[in-house]
Amino acid sequence: MTAAAEIADFLRREFPQTKCVVEAVGDGTSTVSHEITVHELRPGGTVLGPVLMSVADVALYVAILGKLGIIPLAVTTSLTINFLRRPTADRAILGICKLMKVGHSLVVGEVALYSRGQDEIVAHAVGTYSIPRGAVTDTARQSI
Amino acid sequence: MTAAAEIADFLRREFPQTKCVVEAVGDGTSTVSHEITVHELRPGGTVLGPVLMSVADVALYVAILGKLGIIPLAVTTSLTINFLRRPTADRAILGICKLMKVGHSLVVGEVALYSRGQDEIVAHAVGTYSIPRGAVTDTARQSI
Amino acid sequence: MTAAAEIADFLRREFPQTKCVVEAVGDGTSTVSHEITVHELRPGGTVLGPVLMSVADVALYVAILGKLGIIPLAVTTSLTINFLRRPTADRAILGICKLMKVGHSLVVGEVALYSRGQDEIVAHAVGTYSIPRGAVTDTARQSI
Amino acid sequence: MTAAAEIADFLRREFPQTKCVVEAVGDGTSTVSHEITVHELRPGGTVLGPVLMSVADVALYVAILGKLGIIPLAVTTSLTINFLRRPTADRAILGICKLMKVGHSLVVGEVALYSRGQDEIVAHAVGTYSIPRGAVTDTARQSI
Repeated sequence: MTAAAEIADFLRREFPQTKCVVEAVGDGTSTVSHEITVHELRPGGTVLGPVLMSVADVALYVAILGKLGIIPLAVTTSLTINFLRRPTADRAILGICKLMKVGHSLVVGEVALYSRGQDEIVAHAVGTYSIPRGAVTDTARQSI
Repeated sequence: MTAAAEIADFLRREFPQTKCVVEAVGDGTSTVSHEITVHELRPGGTVLGPVLMSVADVALYVAILGKLGIIPLAVTTSLTINFLRRPTADRAILGICKLMKVGHSLVVGEVALYSRGQDEIVAHAVGTYSIPRGAVTDTARQSI
Repeated sequence: MTAAAEIADFLRREFPQTKCVVEAVGDGTSTVSHEITVHELRPGGTVLGPVLMSVADVALYVAILGKLGIIPLAVTTSLTINFLRRPTADRAILGICKLMKVGHSLVVGEVALYSRGQDEIVAHAVGTYSIPRGAVTDTARQSI
Repeated sequence: MTAAAEIADFLRREFPQTKCVVEAVGDGTSTVSHEITVHELRPGGTVLGPVLMSVADVALYVAILGKLGIIPLAVTTSLTINFLRRPTADRAILGICKLMKVGHSLVVGEVALYSRGQDEIVAHAVGTYSIPRGAVTDTARQSI
């Protein structure tokens, strides 16, 4: 498993545009957070959909890096998101990811998104990442 | 049908954060474009997934506004995106949307995403928007 | 909450074609099972994808009926399924559903599919049902 | 390209349970049809969702076999379907597939579903198949 701090360093270096903070990394799991700024709100005072999509995408990526090591070229191949409730405008978005399959070339996981401090899920995503051949050892895959 | 210029005005006013340009609006269709900047690229020199998701989301929204009139509170309820090829880093992303269903409370459409000037689709999205009750007349829905 | 036996009766009467058995119904949850027969296998000895889709769809429907009462005209509006591992050919498929949102007109839930007696998830689905207006009271929605 | 008759033979032999008829196969495209019987209807007189899912899945499979040759072990890895309108109970369902990407290990396509003889799309699916390594030559992939 890759440590959360190592993943946070990698993201800062390679994805300086993301504001997501790595809060926790477990075995096939991750928690990331994203502070909402005014320009991420839309009419009606709710968080823009693409902001939630991007938090889901990062949570999935972080869980994969935690599980398989730092693989810069892992890329999203598909993502499905359902928007369930309006997030609170002035709270950070939390993305909590759990990988469901870590295969030889594809990893599939789900992400539950919340407004921090609230119980109700605001959106749910399922995504697939493609892992370049030879990027990871079989050992890294075994525990899931 | 709402004119492209009117939709562009609305977006500029209510969604100042989007860089998407409204290129065309037809009867249940739209074309939007999004210039790529350096901070929208990821390792490997390709466009970040969430940028494509956001172009798809805007293309869908523009097609709906074109069809049903300016409805600020129409919101995305779900989006599925498949990433098919790496977009070219230095070309704008085009999103071409076609609505498939305009119902009483849900609108469903698909969006094909391209790097401008290239023939091959780089991503494909299907999304659903929820339309607030009473926001549109039945007449507006009839031609699709 | 509607009792599992009542839902099983309803399915037997209105959906005689489904072989799914209602195993349990909770508050916004359900478990259904489906015995696999030879004509539901495909080359390679694994269960056909559409069989899994149909179990996911029924699990979702049963969880909705359990939550909201017997609503024959609730219909699926979308379903996304990811196939994660090959199910075992000679074991029943279990579908375990959890509703994530019970709204005024849409219900969204996720379903984890297993081969009975095995720990690893074989497929995961997220689906949306549309509920006809006026079909349920607001009280029924409150506890989720 | 594999001929429609060859694919129909293969399906009859290996998937005797499917009632789908191969109507046409093009370069990365297919049309299949499925006659509806009484036990495929649900309350309200419309076609069961899983029947539509299964037609979408077969249409995709047929387009892949047409493009890449007879690959029995190609398997669905994901499918997203949106149900748009109620199909007519007494008409065959047509599935018209167009592949969007034919990659080294994944093929992605979309399927439009219709009631035969009617113009309005009743459902739309996007699906991904995984192709076993070494199952096809690179030449077969080139024209898409």
